Amino acid sequence: MGRWEPNAGERLERAALALFTERGYEATTVADIAERAGLSRATFFRYFADKREVLFGAPDMLAERFSDAILSAPPAAMAIDCIAAALESAAPGFTADRRDLAAQRDVVIAASSELRERSLLKEASLVSFMTEALCARGVDDLTARLAAELGVLAFNTARSRWVSPGNRQPFTELAHAALRDLQARGAALGAGAEVSA
Amino acid sequence: MGRWEPNAGERLERAALALFTERGYEATTVADIAERAGLSRATFFRYFADKREVLFGAPDMLAERFSDAILSAPPAAMAIDCIAAALESAAPGFTADRRDLAAQRDVVIAASSELRERSLLKEASLVSFMTEALCARGVDDLTARLAAELGVLAFNTARSRWVSPGNRQPFTELAHAALRDLQARGAALGAGAEVSA
Repeated sequence: MGRWEPNAGERLERAALALFTERGYEATTVADIAERAGLSRATFFRYFADKREVLFGAPDMLAERFSDAILSAPPAAMAIDCIAAALESAAPGFTADRRDLAAQRDVVIAASSELRERSLLKEASLVSFMTEALCARGVDDLTARLAAELGVLAFNTARSRWVSPGNRQPFTELAHAALRDLQARGAALGAGAEVSA
Repeated sequence: MGRWEPNAGERLERAALALFTERGYEATTVADIAERAGLSRATFFRYFADKREVLFGAPDMLAERFSDAILSAPPAAMAIDCIAAALESAAPGFTADRRDLAAQRDVVIAASSELRERSLLKEASLVSFMTEALCARGVDDLTARLAAELGVLAFNTARSRWVSPGNRQPFTELAHAALRDLQARGAALGAGAEVSA
């Protein structure tokens, strides 16, 4: 089955998430996933390095997108504008037809402490990538780190609103709203403080 | 060797960190640690659940301290004051005679990707504990989460300044300075934004 298969990546992803939901993540093998999708194991491994990659491949791509968006923002862009650009760069992963997959993924991850840990580590890595990209633009380390935390918090907030049943707002809109909310809260928390170092 | 041993916890900790530094974390056993400290394995297990606990027992205690400090802050205390109280509650772990242990611990953790991951997960758990404690005081979830991230960032910043060679400032002073810095940066990032939800 070396021939080209239409839409194989998404078929594998849908098959995997359906099986993880039915049997649990641990009890599902790559062979099961390929079989359910009507594809070969070899095809699976052309799309994903392993079973876990079905759940966490997207965050890895996201780290690169965030980095690229921050690095290619206009020279005059402030740290917070760079974060907004990073969030916008994630929008292509949030099309309406992917909402059910995202919701399934959340349920699968929530059911396993190992996967929850993996997810937290992916978040930490998103923060690192964004921090590094901001530092590369000349933002000081502490501001970069704080802006990156704010960005990941905005991303998670927007994502969970986007996934919630009944939501019809596009991701970008939710992300901008979440970032504005967090900025305002950051301003309120920081009221009266002055940079001392 | 069931008798009382003076200062056994710290002797075990010093022995463990010395061995982790000499041989690496993986190659060191609990028996090695006990032997180096001149104590029994049984004594080790009265102080630590396992080898990893020598490195991560303190962050677990910290999560409780942070929680308690936030919950017992005066009713009128704002979220950021609660975070300051949490940071202050960590001070007893930062006595001058523990600086060399903290520095050794950092080197051991930095050398192992498994331990670095464990450390990131402990940080995420500190954020969760602080977020929950703030929410229990009636702080809205997003503000609580942001304040908790700020708190852990301030903690890490203060900790790494405290550990750095030549530092003579007490932890509490460094923590307050780091928190003020971060607040000011938060205010700058949030300038012009208004809460929209």
